[in-house]
Amino acid sequence: MLKLFYSPGSCALATHIALEDAGADYVSMRLDFGANQQRGTEYLAINPKGRVPALVTDRGFLSENPAILLFIAQTFPEARLAPLDDPFTLAQVQAFNMYLCATLHVAHAHGRRGYRWADDPAAIAEMQRKVPQAVGECFDLIEREMFAGPWAMGEHYSICDPYLFTVAQWLESDGVDLARVPKILDHRRRMAERPTVIRALAAEQG
Amino acid sequence: MLKLFYSPGSCALATHIALEDAGADYVSMRLDFGANQQRGTEYLAINPKGRVPALVTDRGFLSENPAILLFIAQTFPEARLAPLDDPFTLAQVQAFNMYLCATLHVAHAHGRRGYRWADDPAAIAEMQRKVPQAVGECFDLIEREMFAGPWAMGEHYSICDPYLFTVAQWLESDGVDLARVPKILDHRRRMAERPTVIRALAAEQG
Repeated sequence: MLKLFYSPGSCALATHIALEDAGADYVSMRLDFGANQQRGTEYLAINPKGRVPALVTDRGFLSENPAILLFIAQTFPEARLAPLDDPFTLAQVQAFNMYLCATLHVAHAHGRRGYRWADDPAAIAEMQRKVPQAVGECFDLIEREMFAGPWAMGEHYSICDPYLFTVAQWLESDGVDLARVPKILDHRRRMAERPTVIRALAAEQG
Repeated sequence: MLKLFYSPGSCALATHIALEDAGADYVSMRLDFGANQQRGTEYLAINPKGRVPALVTDRGFLSENPAILLFIAQTFPEARLAPLDDPFTLAQVQAFNMYLCATLHVAHAHGRRGYRWADDPAAIAEMQRKVPQAVGECFDLIEREMFAGPWAMGEHYSICDPYLFTVAQWLESDGVDLARVPKILDHRRRMAERPTVIRALAAEQG
């Protein structure tokens, strides 16, 4: 059975929702980031990156949201979570998710994990100060150029939607002016009404 | 015909090599980062992210190395650049490339593009100071946990190899002690002997 390692409030929510969307048989395992469990020897033996999400399968573990999300879409094709038969459209889906992973999430991380890239407390504070601007510019690009509507990639719900919903959870705490992103807010509202999202959030908050 | 936008010394080299590996019919278009062409209105009309690589196809443009690399592998299946019939192994391939994109490349970027995450020159200098450590830890993880050998993912050459070769170009300029990464150095040496790599490098340096 699939086993998802997650931490509440983290980007692992995207994978959590996608597992629900896929109707997958899985269990979820909570890591306490406050107690630094993700850096403990037990978890590092599972995922040496010390991050979430990690999806443990009967063939080994997988990491990195965009990779796991595509794996879920391919493993549960009947859920129709990605355009598996069209390499170009699939690449657009993957490019959307990689922007969230490698640019937006990275900008967000400077508010919480600046120690990855600097030691000086003043530099870390400066990174935190710039988060609303840096993250806001990412959301601007998504709102203006990337979001097709009604779902992230257009008419069809896909593995981009749980990931966009996940990072949109951070809008307020990252200090982004909500008036900049009406389409993303509407998407967040509609996502929050989906039973699969309600179940994943309940599991993480329970 | 496919059209690749790149800048010499950038991560677009990974896509450039993969296009050669695939035997693709393509043209390459150089952007002068020194003149900030990637932020010019002409290029932003093609790729609003203002980054490279971008691959223009007859259906539109694609961005993000891991997405483009998978697109190349799927579009030229006879080149056998990814395990297209095995979702789990493909997810491992994608996770490898995602780590290069979202963690290693990000650590590297703090040495050159710290302005993305801070305005204060002292903070930007502090980020630059930490690059050898932050990038070095990424290469340590690849050397110790991720690199299977003889190729990145094991017996079969894949879309991970041109990407690893590309980021390994930065080892010296990022101040990483080469003694830490013998397997990656050996891989880099073997990659540099491949005709497809020689052709891509010659095109970028010509």
